[in-house]
Amino acid sequence: MKRLIAVIALLPLLAIAQDRDSVMIKKFSDEILRNGTAYDLLYQLTKQVGGRLAGSPQFAKAELWGKATLEHIGPDQVIMQECMLPHWVRGGQDKAVITELDKKKASRALDVLALGNSMGSEGKTITADVLMVADFDELERRKDEVKDKIVYYNYGFNPTNLMPFVSYGETGMYRRSGPSRAAKYGAVAVMIRSLTESSANDPHTGAMAYTEGITKIPAVAVGPRDADYLWSIKTGFKVSLKTNGQFLPDTIGHNVIAVLKGSEFPDEIITIGGHLDSWDVNEGAHDDGAGIVHTIEVLRAMKALGYKPKHTIHFVLFANEENGLRGGSKYAEQAKANNEKHIFALESDEGGFTPRGFGFSFKDKSKLVKVQNWLPLLRPYGTDRMIDGGGGADIGPLAAAFGTPMCGLIPDPQRYFDLHHARSDVFENVNKRELLLGAVNMAGLIYLVDQYGL
Amino acid sequence: MKRLIAVIALLPLLAIAQDRDSVMIKKFSDEILRNGTAYDLLYQLTKQVGGRLAGSPQFAKAELWGKATLEHIGPDQVIMQECMLPHWVRGGQDKAVITELDKKKASRALDVLALGNSMGSEGKTITADVLMVADFDELERRKDEVKDKIVYYNYGFNPTNLMPFVSYGETGMYRRSGPSRAAKYGAVAVMIRSLTESSANDPHTGAMAYTEGITKIPAVAVGPRDADYLWSIKTGFKVSLKTNGQFLPDTIGHNVIAVLKGSEFPDEIITIGGHLDSWDVNEGAHDDGAGIVHTIEVLRAMKALGYKPKHTIHFVLFANEENGLRGGSKYAEQAKANNEKHIFALESDEGGFTPRGFGFSFKDKSKLVKVQNWLPLLRPYGTDRMIDGGGGADIGPLAAAFGTPMCGLIPDPQRYFDLHHARSDVFENVNKRELLLGAVNMAGLIYLVDQYGL
Repeated sequence: MKRLIAVIALLPLLAIAQDRDSVMIKKFSDEILRNGTAYDLLYQLTKQVGGRLAGSPQFAKAELWGKATLEHIGPDQVIMQECMLPHWVRGGQDKAVITELDKKKASRALDVLALGNSMGSEGKTITADVLMVADFDELERRKDEVKDKIVYYNYGFNPTNLMPFVSYGETGMYRRSGPSRAAKYGAVAVMIRSLTESSANDPHTGAMAYTEGITKIPAVAVGPRDADYLWSIKTGFKVSLKTNGQFLPDTIGHNVIAVLKGSEFPDEIITIGGHLDSWDVNEGAHDDGAGIVHTIEVLRAMKALGYKPKHTIHFVLFANEENGLRGGSKYAEQAKANNEKHIFALESDEGGFTPRGFGFSFKDKSKLVKVQNWLPLLRPYGTDRMIDGGGGADIGPLAAAFGTPMCGLIPDPQRYFDLHHARSDVFENVNKRELLLGAVNMAGLIYLVDQYGL
Repeated sequence: MKRLIAVIALLPLLAIAQDRDSVMIKKFSDEILRNGTAYDLLYQLTKQVGGRLAGSPQFAKAELWGKATLEHIGPDQVIMQECMLPHWVRGGQDKAVITELDKKKASRALDVLALGNSMGSEGKTITADVLMVADFDELERRKDEVKDKIVYYNYGFNPTNLMPFVSYGETGMYRRSGPSRAAKYGAVAVMIRSLTESSANDPHTGAMAYTEGITKIPAVAVGPRDADYLWSIKTGFKVSLKTNGQFLPDTIGHNVIAVLKGSEFPDEIITIGGHLDSWDVNEGAHDDGAGIVHTIEVLRAMKALGYKPKHTIHFVLFANEENGLRGGSKYAEQAKANNEKHIFALESDEGGFTPRGFGFSFKDKSKLVKVQNWLPLLRPYGTDRMIDGGGGADIGPLAAAFGTPMCGLIPDPQRYFDLHHARSDVFENVNKRELLLGAVNMAGLIYLVDQYGL
């Protein structure tokens, strides 16, 4: 009973704190919605820098843009953290044509994109019969038919999944390991149905990786409507395919890190970030231009409001997520080498859509209850969920190295895979208010973590 | 205590019912996400019918499309409920040009749209000095300066409002009554800042109404960027303005109503609907093509699943919301004349964006608690709120006449006023999954109301 009375006695204090917090979060919201520069910065990054695959000259330009943009806002420090970047190049236009359809020599071009990290057809055009399979099970059943053929995987998104990320989880292995699984049985190339539910014909690229010791065959993603067409004809045709991908030597790149020094716990670090690299075929507007400008916007709003964090905050533009994760790996490695203490990491890498909440990965699940108590403070800004499970690829290595609790912004996910890794991921498909609201919710969460720790 | 035990004894039954309900709602979801035709029907309505202001030939075409589409699905009955429609025509291109800027005779065209129901400039071009006012307060302070001028109202959306509908509520009176308030003091025309936060220059039209006995002066909405420009120069210029709006005689139109007959309570009616009319300058994709195809999709899914409702359900394509509300008024009037019993009405008229929940208007607030108990059943489909307050313009007269509880679908609101009443409200700005999910949540709610009443 004594304890209960003690708790009750504290309630007015708690109410005052909550009131102070809600006032502060409203200040962040007003500042960001009224004066936010995220949308204009995204315009610069997408239209003036453009597509920026790690290792490319455009990526070097993006780094300089990031450094100048952060310095202009005036944090305590901007660090260029060197890391080696993979340098894969597409090397030209990817081509695929259906030939000898119905033995009538009809031909039809398919809209395809080579998968990131895939090897080109060595200057030659590969022409072969196509083995159409629904999934890996069918591949295994028909493995004796694979030799010298192009294997096409039709495994697509399940439209009845309410969360498109579930569909992406179910299909991603076809992109990542489909090529080597077919090459093992003698396939000469692989085509996959694009990982999307979009009804446009844009193909969707993305990273793949070859299995050690298996022949590195070309691999492309096929636009959804062309995939439907292929699947409808099923047999009796060849495809001629030419891709040009190759790896050039690694280049030097940088994680660009702005630092706000903590006033009470300068040695305890909160990280907030997104990744600066994108695919080469689009502007990387949602993936992950949005995460980059979210990150910068939170810094800008803190400076504009004169907010002095208790903990040190790192605002990180990670150098390489799409085809190597070298940025996040270097950040964790350096933190380890410097014996840093990382208490929390937040990433935005699911687009600039209306924010719905956050997903958390805690080793100690009781901490989830603590953060869920903050839900009413963030609800007015769109957060309706603070769920178990989440984070981001770039902060994954940090969480793995330190056990740092990590968290990912969850924007509304319904439009993401229409654009993800496709040519349509451009500035025009980002809405200003939706984008700014992401930064509002991130600022609110970072503020709460900074005030109360975890 | 006895009552408590009775309640506890009922819990397993409650659990079984909830389980049955969640299975049924998942069936609706799977059916709609897998086989839904809402997106294709929206394509037909927007691209093949197009803009369809009440009274126009396009509206007559929309009615026929609605009738044929509903009949094809095969409800128990399709009723064409006659009602007289206003027939306002824009009558040509609306024009406004800045002249005599800085006395240098510089001129610049402004992108404007006449407000719906406004009268044209009688074939003449009106050229006059412009009185720029921030709001009605400034108009009142400067009323002596108004005579023979064009009054421009700059009152815009407040970007710090988290819900754009709040901004619309704060600014709507400038469109609706701004013209007559200025005409009272002798203004010759009115221009308003478009009711939007968009950074595109598209002007946003919408209905206005003249006050009885006050001169009916022309009135236009100005594109946001042009509005910024006007506000930046403030004084020292004239505007030449020509609009051509007029009312032609009322025409005969119809509410198009599909009926599913109730198996247990055939005399108790649930209404679900949207409005078939749109503005003339766009395709009415979100406003309210989305509500129309949501309504049709719920019917289609019920038929596809063989669902036999307990109550009679009316699926209503209301004939006229934008500039007269004649459709909803006639529906209520006819219900009154037929002595019908209306137990619930649901409208979708806030766009085809990801659904966030529902807003309810109950006279008996205890009923809100009842429907809020359903929230866990709808949460997997995106509903995160079931709030007090809401409905729809078309079902408003029914609620007023019968005290019928009414409800409005709440889609994510952040993009709505970028498109609302502007040329950009076209099919391309609707996302298929977001649209279908609206129908999923509506089907779920209608199912629950049908099963349990209110």
